[in-house]
Amino acid sequence: MTKLKWGMIGGGEGSQIGPAHRLGAGLDGEFEFAAGALDHRPEAGRDYGQRLGLDAARAYGDWREMLDGEKNRADRVDLVTVATPNATHYEITKAYLEAGFHVLCEKPMTMTIEQGEDIVRTAEATGRICAVNYGYSGYSLVRHMKAMVARGDLGKIRLVKAEFAHGHHADAADADNPRVRWRYDPAQAGVSAQFADCGIHALHMASFVTGQEVTKLSADTVSCIQSRELEDDAMVNFRMDGGAVGRLWTSSIAIGRQHGLTLQVFGEKGGLRWAQEQPNQLYWMPLGERLQTIERGEAGLSPEADRTSRVTIGHAEGMPLAFANIYKDLAEAIRAEKQGREMDPAANLYPRAEDGLRSMAAVFAVAQSGKADGEWVDARPPMYR
Amino acid sequence: MTKLKWGMIGGGEGSQIGPAHRLGAGLDGEFEFAAGALDHRPEAGRDYGQRLGLDAARAYGDWREMLDGEKNRADRVDLVTVATPNATHYEITKAYLEAGFHVLCEKPMTMTIEQGEDIVRTAEATGRICAVNYGYSGYSLVRHMKAMVARGDLGKIRLVKAEFAHGHHADAADADNPRVRWRYDPAQAGVSAQFADCGIHALHMASFVTGQEVTKLSADTVSCIQSRELEDDAMVNFRMDGGAVGRLWTSSIAIGRQHGLTLQVFGEKGGLRWAQEQPNQLYWMPLGERLQTIERGEAGLSPEADRTSRVTIGHAEGMPLAFANIYKDLAEAIRAEKQGREMDPAANLYPRAEDGLRSMAAVFAVAQSGKADGEWVDARPPMYR
Amino acid sequence: MTKLKWGMIGGGEGSQIGPAHRLGAGLDGEFEFAAGALDHRPEAGRDYGQRLGLDAARAYGDWREMLDGEKNRADRVDLVTVATPNATHYEITKAYLEAGFHVLCEKPMTMTIEQGEDIVRTAEATGRICAVNYGYSGYSLVRHMKAMVARGDLGKIRLVKAEFAHGHHADAADADNPRVRWRYDPAQAGVSAQFADCGIHALHMASFVTGQEVTKLSADTVSCIQSRELEDDAMVNFRMDGGAVGRLWTSSIAIGRQHGLTLQVFGEKGGLRWAQEQPNQLYWMPLGERLQTIERGEAGLSPEADRTSRVTIGHAEGMPLAFANIYKDLAEAIRAEKQGREMDPAANLYPRAEDGLRSMAAVFAVAQSGKADGEWVDARPPMYR
Amino acid sequence: MTKLKWGMIGGGEGSQIGPAHRLGAGLDGEFEFAAGALDHRPEAGRDYGQRLGLDAARAYGDWREMLDGEKNRADRVDLVTVATPNATHYEITKAYLEAGFHVLCEKPMTMTIEQGEDIVRTAEATGRICAVNYGYSGYSLVRHMKAMVARGDLGKIRLVKAEFAHGHHADAADADNPRVRWRYDPAQAGVSAQFADCGIHALHMASFVTGQEVTKLSADTVSCIQSRELEDDAMVNFRMDGGAVGRLWTSSIAIGRQHGLTLQVFGEKGGLRWAQEQPNQLYWMPLGERLQTIERGEAGLSPEADRTSRVTIGHAEGMPLAFANIYKDLAEAIRAEKQGREMDPAANLYPRAEDGLRSMAAVFAVAQSGKADGEWVDARPPMYR
Repeated sequence: MTKLKWGMIGGGEGSQIGPAHRLGAGLDGEFEFAAGALDHRPEAGRDYGQRLGLDAARAYGDWREMLDGEKNRADRVDLVTVATPNATHYEITKAYLEAGFHVLCEKPMTMTIEQGEDIVRTAEATGRICAVNYGYSGYSLVRHMKAMVARGDLGKIRLVKAEFAHGHHADAADADNPRVRWRYDPAQAGVSAQFADCGIHALHMASFVTGQEVTKLSADTVSCIQSRELEDDAMVNFRMDGGAVGRLWTSSIAIGRQHGLTLQVFGEKGGLRWAQEQPNQLYWMPLGERLQTIERGEAGLSPEADRTSRVTIGHAEGMPLAFANIYKDLAEAIRAEKQGREMDPAANLYPRAEDGLRSMAAVFAVAQSGKADGEWVDARPPMYR
Repeated sequence: MTKLKWGMIGGGEGSQIGPAHRLGAGLDGEFEFAAGALDHRPEAGRDYGQRLGLDAARAYGDWREMLDGEKNRADRVDLVTVATPNATHYEITKAYLEAGFHVLCEKPMTMTIEQGEDIVRTAEATGRICAVNYGYSGYSLVRHMKAMVARGDLGKIRLVKAEFAHGHHADAADADNPRVRWRYDPAQAGVSAQFADCGIHALHMASFVTGQEVTKLSADTVSCIQSRELEDDAMVNFRMDGGAVGRLWTSSIAIGRQHGLTLQVFGEKGGLRWAQEQPNQLYWMPLGERLQTIERGEAGLSPEADRTSRVTIGHAEGMPLAFANIYKDLAEAIRAEKQGREMDPAANLYPRAEDGLRSMAAVFAVAQSGKADGEWVDARPPMYR
Repeated sequence: MTKLKWGMIGGGEGSQIGPAHRLGAGLDGEFEFAAGALDHRPEAGRDYGQRLGLDAARAYGDWREMLDGEKNRADRVDLVTVATPNATHYEITKAYLEAGFHVLCEKPMTMTIEQGEDIVRTAEATGRICAVNYGYSGYSLVRHMKAMVARGDLGKIRLVKAEFAHGHHADAADADNPRVRWRYDPAQAGVSAQFADCGIHALHMASFVTGQEVTKLSADTVSCIQSRELEDDAMVNFRMDGGAVGRLWTSSIAIGRQHGLTLQVFGEKGGLRWAQEQPNQLYWMPLGERLQTIERGEAGLSPEADRTSRVTIGHAEGMPLAFANIYKDLAEAIRAEKQGREMDPAANLYPRAEDGLRSMAAVFAVAQSGKADGEWVDARPPMYR
Repeated sequence: MTKLKWGMIGGGEGSQIGPAHRLGAGLDGEFEFAAGALDHRPEAGRDYGQRLGLDAARAYGDWREMLDGEKNRADRVDLVTVATPNATHYEITKAYLEAGFHVLCEKPMTMTIEQGEDIVRTAEATGRICAVNYGYSGYSLVRHMKAMVARGDLGKIRLVKAEFAHGHHADAADADNPRVRWRYDPAQAGVSAQFADCGIHALHMASFVTGQEVTKLSADTVSCIQSRELEDDAMVNFRMDGGAVGRLWTSSIAIGRQHGLTLQVFGEKGGLRWAQEQPNQLYWMPLGERLQTIERGEAGLSPEADRTSRVTIGHAEGMPLAFANIYKDLAEAIRAEKQGREMDPAANLYPRAEDGLRSMAAVFAVAQSGKADGEWVDARPPMYR
């Protein structure tokens, strides 16, 4: 089977995100790293790309050069990953979609709701895939949670409880640490800090697993370290379009929590609990029965779980493989298109532009509600109201 | 050392609360069960009391008869426990305080804020102890959390996160189960169901451990089982008088959670986490260090923890011993008074009328805010504003 | 219901074991503390007894005085607890059994196998109860494990794995600490240290839960701290009379383990796992299904579990209540005898002289095998061969 | 940086081990898959290799053809992985070493001790790397355990306790299942089943982490399912050349355990505990202090841990990345040789022929001791006695 060709923008030498994407894209042997514009300094990018094995002709100096170079090649890249600074995602993603490329964009997809709507419309108009990297949704047991909800194991969903709480910004001395400070500065980070950075992962998970979208929300945002203008802790109550009630806590001052991405879903017929830090176990209690431990890799899980599980039961899988599952979905989507067939529905789960847009709308809604003493605000993008 | 004399009102044959109090009061050999009015049916109460070993003369038919009988005895009871139906707590507690008895009242102490203020004033005026049974505060490691906060180990407290979430009322069929239904019926339960039943334990814990009182709150209350008029799930954000932010979740539809009383406290210098279901371990992370497991019974804990710990490290202690610690506190308080000395400050931690009053104010505030879309409301009793 | 009368020998002021027994005996209100010879110093014992509320006439100076005093009383004690130094257990227990008293003896019941056999024969001859305090067998979920095995939930038992490993004697400096040193000195401790002190609890649990007795064993005993003559770590492989294979590890140098009493039982049809440090959960996997969490207090457990469970599901119970369950069993046994009826079979689970004897035989077998490079030796008392 | 060239023998279509090796070798972009003889059916192997992207010229029909084809190429493969049926490992590995290739051989490296010694001597004589795939030793926190022991954090090691216990062969009906049955048949599996399959991983871990080698051992081997000729459960006591005592339990009938690879190490100054099923946390108690949780990815870990950790703290890593770390070590070893420099000592941790040989000697020793009622036998290969 011929490998698909993959290109990357951003993720230069020394970045964390670059190796993570190359690992994820390469893991299953579906994608070949074929082109890149890896650095905002053209020469550094060209040099690093070649050291990573790119042909000199496809180790580009910037994203425009790469767009020009690739769009006319017969063997042009099948997928472009955009992992540049946040403020540039919109422009680059839009340009590549319009040139007919499939795109996987890092979060946040855009800086404004209007841009987000534009990307959604562009993706629709061009028929190109615009995926957004909510990588935690790639975990095998998260996929299984979604499948269980979808097939009705929990009955109607009553409540979803999500958390993403860590303590890595709890040191008041970090108020002066440039690597932390910018995150809480509206001039650099926008309208939200901790919710925009971490909370939206948890919110995406809540939507992903329940299959419901957020309609309105009420937020209590606080800066526990008072010199911060943006929030380092937020509690968000929300409502979903299928009737579920939502509760989401996110924090960066929760000393003792390392990451703290957890999801609990309660329905009429049972409850589920999962935590990212020990992602190979899922706790499930059917109404009136006992708590059961579902193990990743056990026999009889859903097709959605099976295809995203790689090692046998009892062995751990972690975040890099979850992330790789997003690429695995995309490989299937792209191959299905090339082959003119329907894609495997169990793979059709990658997060997409709509999710990126909804996240952006939620970020603005949280900021607005937080400033208004928790007033309930519409969390839907205008185009979905 | 002569035993103190103890009397009980309510807790008749077949009740759960009766044996729990007798166990708690008797555990350390401090109290002798000397008088009782155990049943609303006078003959049943007299008979049951005698079967439990009371003298016939002190196995009373009702609380008024007991009050008359005891108040003039030289060997009158030193402490009266009130474990009758909720609506009667106020009247009985007040009468005994005014007659000069120390009282331990089951929660809720009263049905209204006004009654609560009256009890607080009565206790002050009479100089009698009016304790309220928030028994979870008796756990040795909960006492240690309070001591750690008080001595500054965490620095200034930024955030407290409390939960009390179970799934025991998650079955929609229970809407017709009389043992469950009344709890969600305002005519029988008052203005709140799950928050008043469980949430206030978690809220009391938050105050107990931080040493701060709730000033205002915003609540999102929902009835996940729609036939219920009162809430079966609530999220409460609050602020405390020492500057801490609070977040409290309580639920009775969280299938998979058995009890779910947990407390996390985050300060400038460290974070703590404790869960009632495994109460012999406390997780503590000092800022910039590793998570540590504090074991109940380990050497070098605070005096508050040491005096409430009864078996050696590595052995489990549970709820009945926590509950007994409230009685242990009260025994020390009563003996100190009799002996005209200061009581051991490490024992001066039993919940008291002020706590019962504040809980009642919080219940009404949650109900009011819940009806007003989460509007922030003053959660202080009028007499403390 | 009249209380039973209870007496205690040993457990003087400042001891740990005295309060534990008084708590256990008193917890359910079944026993009244009526007589005692609490200290090897007669005056101290009489004084302490009276301060604990004994009549002066029944606060005795030594165990012989108490035997003389009690045996002719109409209201003589129904049960005597022997909690004196180990070397005196045999003589005292035998004397009280012969005088017609029921006895609960602390472990070890005797210092030799011959003495153990003598006690078993004496108990048989007199028809008196001779219980031995293996208190961990009183935990509600341990009782449930036994019931599950007995009713066949696990099928034939293949393997039992027991551990009792702590690190409280891991400091080499303790070689000179008199509170630790004597335990490893054969002149004071006999033929075994860690196995005799802790291992036999785990071994008793293995027999208690499986309903099988040890027939032979092979031991690897080591002194990790080399100045110790007796073992501080032992691995014991054994075989049981119902065909089960056994494996038991005990250690006092396992830094990081606080207590470490755990039991795993594997049968043809399922596996069980329980740990004393979190005793309110039991993990059960039926063959081919998922791991389930059994909660103490859940509906539908065995009668053996139900009668030894005191608080509702989700609340913790600990060691003091487990210990009290031994007294609860004994109260039922004694009352049944007084009333001339069969006792409740679910209460007929207290450890008895036969268990004390078998433990002693196991201790000697471990010591013998340990010295002989793990040679397999008969672990049965001669009278059961 | 030019990629190294990698070839694979075995791991044909549908195997589990093939994708695992390709993932591991490819993960860091160090190796390019350049040659293969993937199937014992030549045409199938050639076809599959080409579908995986190999040049037709390097998609070989069998290992001899590949040896002939590669040995004279200027761009011959730098490393060959041998993942064929066990009985062929010796012959293939030896042939490639002698032709000057570096080899990574699947376990078991050989079928006899003599073969093992031959491989060790061949590797020495040729100066080629012969690595053996004990992949669990690649986990970042296992590397950290080794580093902590090596730098003296635990002081002298007293005891190591290892387990590898699962329940996947607990169904007696599997006695007739061909996929299980062969493992317990000496004609197909050799002298040992469960110990040879799983136990030696745990034993390798014990040696890897302590830096000590097994000298002698005593084994209790049993077939809980009686129709099995080889053991399905074994307890092995051992001694190590640095003075440590060892205890190892392995089982395939432990229903409720999924995988159960755990390691506990106890020294004079502290104790460590790690479990493969939740591999991102390591529990460490320094003598006299509290249990601490060491998190993979935390700041300040050893160089050995840092270089084998790929995602940030709080995110999970799993087995595939541990496995990839073996390839990462090998890449560094091969590059260092090519560049004529010393390799990074923190990478010089891959398991090697000596480990494969020692494992084989341990397997035979366990079988011998098991048949001789646990007699202590020398577990060292003759060449190391």
